[in-house]
Amino acid sequence: MRHCIIVVGGYINDIFAKEFIEKERPELCIAADSGMNFFYRNKLTPDWIIGDFDSASSEALDYFGGQPDISWIRLNPVKDDTDTESAIRKAIALGAEKITLLGATGTRIDHLLGNIELLGIGLQNHIPIQIVDERNRIRMIGAGITLEKEKQFGKFVSLIPYTNVVKGLTLTGFKYPLDHYDFKGFCSLGVSNEIIAESAEIAFEEGILIVIEARD
Amino acid sequence: MRHCIIVVGGYINDIFAKEFIEKERPELCIAADSGMNFFYRNKLTPDWIIGDFDSASSEALDYFGGQPDISWIRLNPVKDDTDTESAIRKAIALGAEKITLLGATGTRIDHLLGNIELLGIGLQNHIPIQIVDERNRIRMIGAGITLEKEKQFGKFVSLIPYTNVVKGLTLTGFKYPLDHYDFKGFCSLGVSNEIIAESAEIAFEEGILIVIEARD
Repeated sequence: MRHCIIVVGGYINDIFAKEFIEKERPELCIAADSGMNFFYRNKLTPDWIIGDFDSASSEALDYFGGQPDISWIRLNPVKDDTDTESAIRKAIALGAEKITLLGATGTRIDHLLGNIELLGIGLQNHIPIQIVDERNRIRMIGAGITLEKEKQFGKFVSLIPYTNVVKGLTLTGFKYPLDHYDFKGFCSLGVSNEIIAESAEIAFEEGILIVIEARD
Repeated sequence: MRHCIIVVGGYINDIFAKEFIEKERPELCIAADSGMNFFYRNKLTPDWIIGDFDSASSEALDYFGGQPDISWIRLNPVKDDTDTESAIRKAIALGAEKITLLGATGTRIDHLLGNIELLGIGLQNHIPIQIVDERNRIRMIGAGITLEKEKQFGKFVSLIPYTNVVKGLTLTGFKYPLDHYDFKGFCSLGVSNEIIAESAEIAFEEGILIVIEARD
């Protein structure tokens, strides 16, 4: 099983998300709690529904409750982990080799930052996890990557240090290049870079980096 | 000079922002680049306008350009720092003792994370800096704080470790308490806590914590 898409209960652009799912044809779809409202609204069926269901609509709960092909995990509302974290861990247990979170952004910044933290579960398990919405593709990387200009998401590439320092950061093929720079926080240096070559390379010696491809 | 409000060019709810400014009566208002559009729309006048003006409207530029009481700093568009970082550094140079960023959230997640990084400039300079919108109040703390339930912003309090570990985190007066816990990332443990006593205390021995008070 290759790609798993988890739909979370944050902000979601239905048109973008439906097109993304149609294009990716994921082997597994999981609704995390009120993420099921997206499937209900768009006449799609998730493979799994996971949550404490404190925020799902009763219509969606009733509708999916009667369907035999859906597996359910009902979580205790008093718990340490969010529904999204449980869904990610379930996807990995089910054999996901790549995970995309949809509906993981939105106006509750604490939810967004919590979801970005969860990208680290991918690093721990050697599985790429990404958060995608119509303006952003967010990843967390522990080793260098190459971005091809033709395939990039949006116009801008921004880098945010996740660890206190990202050592020896070298950027090539970017408008603002860097050469073995020790990249630390408390500054806006990494925001809104652009790829100017056919491909751009992000390399570093130590640390973890958040990579955001974005468009206005 | 006490409170400085910096309006940034991200998402802004005019009604919320105007009420916030009226209530706070800041001694200093700075427009960072297209943050000036907010002042123009709402017939308010900033004290300083700082930016490379690649995203400000020509109407706002013309309108404020003719006003003698506004100080301007025109930045080079090819620069390492964002307009927001320059505005924060200017506010500190002008003697700000507290800084609030409005318009610092929105749909470009890289801009948001970049702005959250800038909260660390407050820690370095011993000045509280906060990002506020109608759903979130975001702070970065290097030492313990007390939150009074009556004065809290919204219903939820979420904690995100900024340093790789926040050592010995103790939460009292919260629905989900902690006792000398070494709080690390890659999990959603700190999201959506709630204050259940008259006041709640966040204490820790080492590290930097992001505190988000939020409402749905």
